[in-house]
Amino acid sequence: MHAVVLNCTLKPFPQPSHTALLAQVVVEELERLCVSVDVVRVVDQLVPPGIGTDLGDADDWPRLHDQLLRSAILVLASPTQLGRPSSIAQRVLERMDAMRGETDDAGRPVAYNRVAGVVVTAQEDGAQHVISEIAGALVGLGYTVPGQGWTYWNGGPGPGPSYADTDDGHAWSERTGRTMARNLHAVAQAMAGAPMSAPPSR
Amino acid sequence: MHAVVLNCTLKPFPQPSHTALLAQVVVEELERLCVSVDVVRVVDQLVPPGIGTDLGDADDWPRLHDQLLRSAILVLASPTQLGRPSSIAQRVLERMDAMRGETDDAGRPVAYNRVAGVVVTAQEDGAQHVISEIAGALVGLGYTVPGQGWTYWNGGPGPGPSYADTDDGHAWSERTGRTMARNLHAVAQAMAGAPMSAPPSR
Amino acid sequence: MHAVVLNCTLKPFPQPSHTALLAQVVVEELERLCVSVDVVRVVDQLVPPGIGTDLGDADDWPRLHDQLLRSAILVLASPTQLGRPSSIAQRVLERMDAMRGETDDAGRPVAYNRVAGVVVTAQEDGAQHVISEIAGALVGLGYTVPGQGWTYWNGGPGPGPSYADTDDGHAWSERTGRTMARNLHAVAQAMAGAPMSAPPSR
Amino acid sequence: MHAVVLNCTLKPFPQPSHTALLAQVVVEELERLCVSVDVVRVVDQLVPPGIGTDLGDADDWPRLHDQLLRSAILVLASPTQLGRPSSIAQRVLERMDAMRGETDDAGRPVAYNRVAGVVVTAQEDGAQHVISEIAGALVGLGYTVPGQGWTYWNGGPGPGPSYADTDDGHAWSERTGRTMARNLHAVAQAMAGAPMSAPPSR
Repeated sequence: MHAVVLNCTLKPFPQPSHTALLAQVVVEELERLCVSVDVVRVVDQLVPPGIGTDLGDADDWPRLHDQLLRSAILVLASPTQLGRPSSIAQRVLERMDAMRGETDDAGRPVAYNRVAGVVVTAQEDGAQHVISEIAGALVGLGYTVPGQGWTYWNGGPGPGPSYADTDDGHAWSERTGRTMARNLHAVAQAMAGAPMSAPPSR
Repeated sequence: MHAVVLNCTLKPFPQPSHTALLAQVVVEELERLCVSVDVVRVVDQLVPPGIGTDLGDADDWPRLHDQLLRSAILVLASPTQLGRPSSIAQRVLERMDAMRGETDDAGRPVAYNRVAGVVVTAQEDGAQHVISEIAGALVGLGYTVPGQGWTYWNGGPGPGPSYADTDDGHAWSERTGRTMARNLHAVAQAMAGAPMSAPPSR
Repeated sequence: MHAVVLNCTLKPFPQPSHTALLAQVVVEELERLCVSVDVVRVVDQLVPPGIGTDLGDADDWPRLHDQLLRSAILVLASPTQLGRPSSIAQRVLERMDAMRGETDDAGRPVAYNRVAGVVVTAQEDGAQHVISEIAGALVGLGYTVPGQGWTYWNGGPGPGPSYADTDDGHAWSERTGRTMARNLHAVAQAMAGAPMSAPPSR
Repeated sequence: MHAVVLNCTLKPFPQPSHTALLAQVVVEELERLCVSVDVVRVVDQLVPPGIGTDLGDADDWPRLHDQLLRSAILVLASPTQLGRPSSIAQRVLERMDAMRGETDDAGRPVAYNRVAGVVVTAQEDGAQHVISEIAGALVGLGYTVPGQGWTYWNGGPGPGPSYADTDDGHAWSERTGRTMARNLHAVAQAMAGAPMSAPPSR
């Protein structure tokens, strides 16, 4: 089983990403469950704005799109910016929008029988809303979101330290991240054994 | 397999509920798949505000809570009020909040291995946001939300006819509702065959 | 100048309301600015579901509606329940919806030239989303929301103490609450001196 | 009085922008009120991800930031992508975030005494949520959002024509856009006559 983690931090490599640190807990638990995991920092890729799968020469999205199609599990990881998903996370969702019209040999939208989870860090407050926004969009594309298929860390109220600047709350966020990994794996396995069918033609 | 539909319209029986009409499409498709379905109009029950499962004598919630625990499938149906889930839908979620702390014999939150979907009607615009808000809350409680586990109908922009006042868009909303029913059923069956485990203790 | 604070806690009097404590900071700053303030705990009133201003005998809303029309300033205060505004807050918004169709002698929607702010407490994460949901609805009704016209307190990640159970973050939330009070007062005064006109008839 | 409209369409010039068409109604009404208006299509500017005001050589944001500081009125216009603000709109908000820490000579956050409105088009459903998300973020930065300080157009349910592909609902969206322009102008004028003060130092 394969998983891909799209880290939607605003910071290009090699700047440290707080979101990557929390996502790593999920990655390690998935690997413990024998899932192979790729992690992509999307801001380091060239992903221009638009709504098609392939926008031409200077577009790294087609390769990311291929990774999505090879992965039973997607983890979308985002910081919270002004209480909302990062512009990189929204960019990813916009480029994924074309998947609504792409079907497999059995006529199923390509996201069917795949599961998705969300990892969010928030310097202030807002992580749960970011989870809802991203999970809601992914369900619309055809991904199944398992119960407790997320983890988050938040600070606040008001400005304060980021995730890696403190240990406060880490134990909860990490345990919740391990739960998320197990739930993603369990539901992905269940759907592999008994997959969803194509939608009715009318 | 059993399902329960909680219709969160503001209108007590026997007033007609537009949301009920669209939910009925989902009910009939579930029945075609041999799922038995109960439909409850929550506004006709006594569900006082609060966050425990049993708030005392004048509280119909414990009976609804029992129905949730007997049902592999939950459909939460809500109108859109000022672009948001109805106060009845939010009331239901608040009362469900206690389920986060309730576990089965295997130590699993009671919503694990259950699936949930959302049906929304909107006189104006706003149905997709209502879906996200409700689905996001249900995933947090432990429910799994299948890909395309929702249907909606919306009007707008601005004031206009309600669902039953027009035929516009019904074909899409109904076909999407039948898809939703099949997806709920498929994922519920998959999870019955290969259920989620209890979260890690630490 | 008059203000009304609608506290949308789920807890009836005399249970302590964390949200009331933070709202009180705003109340006191408004009083320092010579604004008279009424505070109403809505859960102690009879406010049935529906969308008209007067739903008959057992309806306390018409009296609350009168208070809104006597007040240049509205403060809507809500706890965060599953990351969303409380069912009481949503109930209030639903009952306020009728105000969209009510106009004054000059043909202006009755909420024009009134300002609104939001106070939110969250045991976990979610306060900023609750602010956005409530402020967004109030702007739709015709209320003007001043810059930084809110304050909040949040805990989290995960379960933890409520507002009054800790001192963490109080200084920020209180200072932000005093700012909010001044901003509400300043914009209400500005609009009193130079009011909005009726919308164009076409 | 000066206004700036930031059109956050995903489509670079010279592709037609549906959002631009609806925003133009607001522009023309503002001009009728003797406001000078600049319209910027942000996707045609180089606005890299990040959270500071000036990210170096290849960054057009400092010039846009200057325009914001010269404008009493901001109109943020966005399409709806998967029910959410476009990645360009979120990018703009992220770059505006630094304004929270920038103050004028009187110690006021630079967004104080400025007003903001929102224009949204949605091929399906979702426009009102996009308005709430953007307006909520702008209030957090210090902008005042006047009552009915927005207009929108939406289609749906499900896929359908875009704004310019139909005349349905245009009359309502345009009249609402003219109202929005008048309300932005009225509140900007009121605040110019009686401005907000600096926040309390503690």
